Amino acid sequence: MSALLINSHHGHISASQRIPLIARPFVSERAAKTLDIVEKFVEEECIPADTVYLRQIGETTQERFSAHPPIIEELKLKAKKLGLWNMFLPKAHFTEGAGFSNLEYGLMAEYLGKSRTASEATNCAAPDTGNMEVIAKYGSDFQKRKWLDPLLDGKIRSAFLMTEPQVASSDATNIEMTIKRDGDSYVLNGQKWWSSGIGDPRCEVFIVLGKTDATNPDKYKQQSVILVPHTAPGITIHRMLSVLGYDDAPHGHGHVSFHNVRVPAVNMVLGEGRGFEIIQGRLGPGRIHHAMRSIGSAEKALEWFLARINDEKKKPFGEMLHKHGVMLERVARSRIEIDAGRLAVLNAAITIDELNAKGALKEIAEVKVLVPALNLKVIDWAIQAYGGAGVSQDTPLASMYASGRTMRIVDGPDEVHLLQLGKNENKRGPAHKKRIEAQTKKGLELCKQHGITVRDPLHLNRKSGEESKL
Amino acid sequence: MSALLINSHHGHISASQRIPLIARPFVSERAAKTLDIVEKFVEEECIPADTVYLRQIGETTQERFSAHPPIIEELKLKAKKLGLWNMFLPKAHFTEGAGFSNLEYGLMAEYLGKSRTASEATNCAAPDTGNMEVIAKYGSDFQKRKWLDPLLDGKIRSAFLMTEPQVASSDATNIEMTIKRDGDSYVLNGQKWWSSGIGDPRCEVFIVLGKTDATNPDKYKQQSVILVPHTAPGITIHRMLSVLGYDDAPHGHGHVSFHNVRVPAVNMVLGEGRGFEIIQGRLGPGRIHHAMRSIGSAEKALEWFLARINDEKKKPFGEMLHKHGVMLERVARSRIEIDAGRLAVLNAAITIDELNAKGALKEIAEVKVLVPALNLKVIDWAIQAYGGAGVSQDTPLASMYASGRTMRIVDGPDEVHLLQLGKNENKRGPAHKKRIEAQTKKGLELCKQHGITVRDPLHLNRKSGEESKL
Amino acid sequence: MSALLINSHHGHISASQRIPLIARPFVSERAAKTLDIVEKFVEEECIPADTVYLRQIGETTQERFSAHPPIIEELKLKAKKLGLWNMFLPKAHFTEGAGFSNLEYGLMAEYLGKSRTASEATNCAAPDTGNMEVIAKYGSDFQKRKWLDPLLDGKIRSAFLMTEPQVASSDATNIEMTIKRDGDSYVLNGQKWWSSGIGDPRCEVFIVLGKTDATNPDKYKQQSVILVPHTAPGITIHRMLSVLGYDDAPHGHGHVSFHNVRVPAVNMVLGEGRGFEIIQGRLGPGRIHHAMRSIGSAEKALEWFLARINDEKKKPFGEMLHKHGVMLERVARSRIEIDAGRLAVLNAAITIDELNAKGALKEIAEVKVLVPALNLKVIDWAIQAYGGAGVSQDTPLASMYASGRTMRIVDGPDEVHLLQLGKNENKRGPAHKKRIEAQTKKGLELCKQHGITVRDPLHLNRKSGEESKL
Amino acid sequence: MSALLINSHHGHISASQRIPLIARPFVSERAAKTLDIVEKFVEEECIPADTVYLRQIGETTQERFSAHPPIIEELKLKAKKLGLWNMFLPKAHFTEGAGFSNLEYGLMAEYLGKSRTASEATNCAAPDTGNMEVIAKYGSDFQKRKWLDPLLDGKIRSAFLMTEPQVASSDATNIEMTIKRDGDSYVLNGQKWWSSGIGDPRCEVFIVLGKTDATNPDKYKQQSVILVPHTAPGITIHRMLSVLGYDDAPHGHGHVSFHNVRVPAVNMVLGEGRGFEIIQGRLGPGRIHHAMRSIGSAEKALEWFLARINDEKKKPFGEMLHKHGVMLERVARSRIEIDAGRLAVLNAAITIDELNAKGALKEIAEVKVLVPALNLKVIDWAIQAYGGAGVSQDTPLASMYASGRTMRIVDGPDEVHLLQLGKNENKRGPAHKKRIEAQTKKGLELCKQHGITVRDPLHLNRKSGEESKL
Repeated sequence: MSALLINSHHGHISASQRIPLIARPFVSERAAKTLDIVEKFVEEECIPADTVYLRQIGETTQERFSAHPPIIEELKLKAKKLGLWNMFLPKAHFTEGAGFSNLEYGLMAEYLGKSRTASEATNCAAPDTGNMEVIAKYGSDFQKRKWLDPLLDGKIRSAFLMTEPQVASSDATNIEMTIKRDGDSYVLNGQKWWSSGIGDPRCEVFIVLGKTDATNPDKYKQQSVILVPHTAPGITIHRMLSVLGYDDAPHGHGHVSFHNVRVPAVNMVLGEGRGFEIIQGRLGPGRIHHAMRSIGSAEKALEWFLARINDEKKKPFGEMLHKHGVMLERVARSRIEIDAGRLAVLNAAITIDELNAKGALKEIAEVKVLVPALNLKVIDWAIQAYGGAGVSQDTPLASMYASGRTMRIVDGPDEVHLLQLGKNENKRGPAHKKRIEAQTKKGLELCKQHGITVRDPLHLNRKSGEESKL
Repeated sequence: MSALLINSHHGHISASQRIPLIARPFVSERAAKTLDIVEKFVEEECIPADTVYLRQIGETTQERFSAHPPIIEELKLKAKKLGLWNMFLPKAHFTEGAGFSNLEYGLMAEYLGKSRTASEATNCAAPDTGNMEVIAKYGSDFQKRKWLDPLLDGKIRSAFLMTEPQVASSDATNIEMTIKRDGDSYVLNGQKWWSSGIGDPRCEVFIVLGKTDATNPDKYKQQSVILVPHTAPGITIHRMLSVLGYDDAPHGHGHVSFHNVRVPAVNMVLGEGRGFEIIQGRLGPGRIHHAMRSIGSAEKALEWFLARINDEKKKPFGEMLHKHGVMLERVARSRIEIDAGRLAVLNAAITIDELNAKGALKEIAEVKVLVPALNLKVIDWAIQAYGGAGVSQDTPLASMYASGRTMRIVDGPDEVHLLQLGKNENKRGPAHKKRIEAQTKKGLELCKQHGITVRDPLHLNRKSGEESKL
Repeated sequence: MSALLINSHHGHISASQRIPLIARPFVSERAAKTLDIVEKFVEEECIPADTVYLRQIGETTQERFSAHPPIIEELKLKAKKLGLWNMFLPKAHFTEGAGFSNLEYGLMAEYLGKSRTASEATNCAAPDTGNMEVIAKYGSDFQKRKWLDPLLDGKIRSAFLMTEPQVASSDATNIEMTIKRDGDSYVLNGQKWWSSGIGDPRCEVFIVLGKTDATNPDKYKQQSVILVPHTAPGITIHRMLSVLGYDDAPHGHGHVSFHNVRVPAVNMVLGEGRGFEIIQGRLGPGRIHHAMRSIGSAEKALEWFLARINDEKKKPFGEMLHKHGVMLERVARSRIEIDAGRLAVLNAAITIDELNAKGALKEIAEVKVLVPALNLKVIDWAIQAYGGAGVSQDTPLASMYASGRTMRIVDGPDEVHLLQLGKNENKRGPAHKKRIEAQTKKGLELCKQHGITVRDPLHLNRKSGEESKL
Repeated sequence: MSALLINSHHGHISASQRIPLIARPFVSERAAKTLDIVEKFVEEECIPADTVYLRQIGETTQERFSAHPPIIEELKLKAKKLGLWNMFLPKAHFTEGAGFSNLEYGLMAEYLGKSRTASEATNCAAPDTGNMEVIAKYGSDFQKRKWLDPLLDGKIRSAFLMTEPQVASSDATNIEMTIKRDGDSYVLNGQKWWSSGIGDPRCEVFIVLGKTDATNPDKYKQQSVILVPHTAPGITIHRMLSVLGYDDAPHGHGHVSFHNVRVPAVNMVLGEGRGFEIIQGRLGPGRIHHAMRSIGSAEKALEWFLARINDEKKKPFGEMLHKHGVMLERVARSRIEIDAGRLAVLNAAITIDELNAKGALKEIAEVKVLVPALNLKVIDWAIQAYGGAGVSQDTPLASMYASGRTMRIVDGPDEVHLLQLGKNENKRGPAHKKRIEAQTKKGLELCKQHGITVRDPLHLNRKSGEESKL
């Protein structure tokens, strides 16, 4: 570990040298080395390639959602050669990945989050990551060979179809897509939206959540997950949704309908009624990935912010921006919030590593709320420093804001997580009340023992309605 | 005025009935009636027409920036028939307008701000409004006949070219566009961006700020304003800038270069070196218009917010959203901030009406900062209530957010206004210090007179470096 | 009115000159002149007297709550001579006062809020103000002669006893104090706290809210208000409550018990069961008074803030504080929020003046939440500029913070007002939903008429459960 | 370590079980066991004793600042018996302490922060802790025997005299206290305030910062630290400062003057001109202690908050408070911020442990700003839930708020730390700018290689003033 501790003051401080000290015991030498390779790959290959990528997509909707920017395949070749492939699959639960823990991959995901192309270039892009985890964990051999292998190999892409437009799908028990058994098949009817990734021409399989048993009294047993090939007749992609003006092509977010879509019964994952269980397991690590990419996004925004306020060509009122009023305070607050947010994500990651996602519910929910908010705050400040350039295509800030903004909504809006966290925390309320009352009583008794007269501040000895005896 | 006071409890409360009581003495009966017509026109004609408008623009960049959606001309006919035309030109300073005060128009602008098409439909759209004010106030007869008349008539549109990409133009003394006299002409060289409105095929004149005298020791005398026909050779529109992913076609925000662009000397406005004076006069009322449209935007966001949390089809966890946690508090906070913001804008408007824009500097700067922030807050909450629909094209919220976001940047970023406000306020500092010290001294003397020994909390009697005598 | 508009640039700008333009039509010449006298009296007499007042109170609890600082009587004499007496009683409803409107008095209350002694010196101090309103409005002749006359004359003081320690009294239906008829008397039992003013040795009458009919099915008819002389046997003041460490002596906040306290039946106000009605009428103008005093407190905090950052003796890192980072931005934000808050209060005041308190419920609730928050924010910033001196007795900021903090609690905590506001606003939800849907439908029809194919973004034509037909 | 990981679901989860997973590799078994003992001691002994302590102090100023509440000595005996003594002295640098790391003690300090008496009971109270560190690290043998030994033994207390009233002492180079060599003595003149701890009758030694060489061109060499016995003639304690109304007796915060105070030359610490070096080393760990106690304070506030919203006697509008609006969201946000803040402090602590305080400047400054703010936010929410009880003496919240508020000021106000952090971060600005420009150039070249025409968004190829060539 000692090598990690030496922060070189000569030139660049590498990613591994910047790992917070508290996280270092959890980072292997191999992960630290890989992290530095990730940083170099992202900064020197992917970020420059982003410029090309955005221009290889095309202009009309038609073009944009049939594009496969060639630069991506060039990057994938480079990434594979560097050993940067499938780092997201945690070693504790999967043998198919690169052999890192969630914490180790989390550190890498921060850097992936700085580039538009880096996650896909290393086969670590959502929603494929979560989808691969699902198939690897719950899929049959048939399912693995047919879809997991090409996914792991970066040959195809996938989509995850859960959310529906006509119900409040922040509560997944509301979904209405029907999956009906019919002989050796299942037949699907309904509509989905925010089907992210569905625009990519290489997207060949949809992981679909629907109801096989809508009347089951246990509303967490009504759902099932089934794998649907993109070619199944009856599927219509009606349109692609925009995010604050961005279409996120070619990936995209589709609004899709299923009309009597028939798939073989062997495509059912794990069995009917297991849908809730599957999607819950899927969401834990994915939220960590999102959160760490958001940390990377915030760092990138801060870097652009710092670049601007040190731009000698931009001197309002005769001084570089960093000399003005609030700029350095915003820089400092950005640094404080990013650093605290990163620690929270890393702690959540290690909690998943050691206790699995279910044991890390609190930690995951915390970062789900904390990190997107800080990311947006830092980007917003950076935009403000750039003025018009900040909201335009001339900086990456505007599109980072748009995608950062969705992080407060995807996988459940802030409010759902806050309520859940609040409810769990509130369960401790009666115990706290009891303890505080016991402490107060003991304090009053101690006073009496020491000859001190006091009144009872918590009114412990008085029942409601009883006549006042202070 | 009494009619205004009767808030009907049977059905709809009209716009004029909702004028804050404190503003009513400033609103004529005619303005109140017009306000109700504006409301009806916006809600019943313009907002439905927005849907058509967005679809008549086209898909490719080429199409989008040569479009003139026919629905706009239909609306303009209706608006003229209703007498809703050029309401923005304040009666105190112009005879060409509809004869309302800034406050009265402000009330109307709130409703215009609820629709994408309403401002243009009533010939009250930026940047034409400010441009018309400039020509009406400072233009020659020649300039008025050539450009003001068709602008007032809604026949042509205009652009305002001030900001430049390579300098910090939040400080307008930095601009570099050169305007050189050459015989009977002026020759312009330089580049501009955020040239809003330049995308519209009907945009025929540009109001350009440049430097005629870059070495003048008084840096507020270096600039001039000149009128440039869109057909002048040497002008290239390189590209259109996007705002958080939106291109705002056909209006748009252009990045333009001027290469030896020659215009007749008679196009100079007011005379060389008067540029700063002209643009300062231009910005006051425009900021009120923006602010009141932002109030309308916030009201609209709140209406959509309320619509969603009362949607019976959207019940996460079995309850409509308004039953959940923070929703009603956010509604209440929205109401509080919108109402306070509106009063601030109306007070700024009446201050312009009574003291002109220069006498209202403080009030204008205050709303320039206050209102965009509250608008974004309310929209953001509404987006959060809608989830995915909120950031997509299915609600107007996302594009409202994008254009609301620019309001923290256009006409000077928040930080510039805050600094200016802070500096002005700070001038009162020494006087406050003196008064507080005088009060403290008097208090100490009073104590002495009443036989009370006290020490001097402000250390008034001690010079720095002097030995301590408490 | 014209005289009011001339803002002298030579020296001091008087209070009447600083009335926001939008409020001026509501301010009589006499009120404007009185306002200037109030300002002068507060700045030149009361603020210096505050120093004496605080030292005339004494040290031990015993001393502090039997003190009557002589300086107060000196100030009262001066105030009476200046005609500054009972300005709070609005002319529209009372003949006993100085003949000002709520708005006019509001302007004066801002200045009273800058001094510890000014409100009492002008006989405009809570809770006497609300108590006098109650007796003047609802009291019998007997009650008026016995208590209103000496109160109006500043001879005695009063307390208002509503809140109780053992229940959630933010919901007044929860109170438990019993008032039982017994022959020609009523007998009271129960306890009260936050009985503000009860510590003053001149406090001679308590206005008490209790239940005469606890089982009445209409829970707003259970309560009654009765006048209790401070000498009635059975009353015990157990202790005085502190506010963030301050005891607010001699006024104070008492914790009191009533044990078979017997008062004549003629002391009942308005009649049994009228209690809720009485206290609701009492709270409206009182909240305006509090809010305007809080505006004054915020202004004073800003003045102290400005004084500090212009203190030449205090130069951290070689520069006066106003040269540092965020200071001027905080100044500017203070100015913005104070000015918007003031307008909100003045609009609420004029709404009471024109529609009475019931018609101004929304406006009152808005300022009840808005103003205390901004006051605390400004004070907090000022404290931060002063460092240690800011939290100590050497500036008025710390005690202003403490009493400002209670404003988020007294007369109902923020949360109750927000919820009430949110609920009222939410009633408009279904109407908004309907209108938005109608607009959307009309937009779709317009599209059809213009030959445009669109989908239905609000899913208006689809019932839940129905098969998808996009 | 495995034992630590088992979170018992049967009843109480102990302090050691609640150590964040990411911190566990740094916690020895012994520290984990001690932590549980600390928790038990604080919850069962100290918190009840707080009630007694507050009442043993007395009423008049005279009494309060000569008090030595006997309960403290009882607690100290218990603490020593439990082995809870001097845990603050980090094992890496001192042999005199209990042998824990800064991180391990940090975990304990969280619990100490929940009680008024716990820090002193375990001899871990400021300012003694920092003072003991100074003498242990820099003191001579003479100084150690005379003052360190009795301090380590809890026999005497000490004060730290740095801040001065008449200068901006947030910049320590401004201090004016003079220390002049005169034969075998030094003679001190000047005044100090916020001399915390000076009120305690057991306070026997003052660590004083002053100037021995005020004209030294290196302004960090002008200062020296000297030890002054409380009995030295010429010292006057003029008064005790209050903190938001609290006097913090008997500890207190003194305003002191030194008039020709003569101390032996052997009392000089480390040598003339070493003062800055000494106080800088002193502040690092102390800030961690403060921050962790603040985390404990926030946890305690949250516990009280939870107790209140689950109080069945307090049901406004028929429901316990946790059913109302925002309460659970505030609980959740409290949990999120506390947990992130704790991780930041622990990471700062481990950074001191491994790199010493100088290597942890950034991490320490971050928590100095982050933690007090979150503590105040949580306390403020808890106060709001309690209403009047929250600001009164009936809950610990009000005094916690007051002392929490000073944490934004002591050891340098937020603004100083933010500016310092911002400046350090800003040093990376030019490097970021260079890298971003290099990435942009590479992106443009890549585009050219791929046959894509693009413009240069950063205007890299254009010099200011050059004619436009887009």
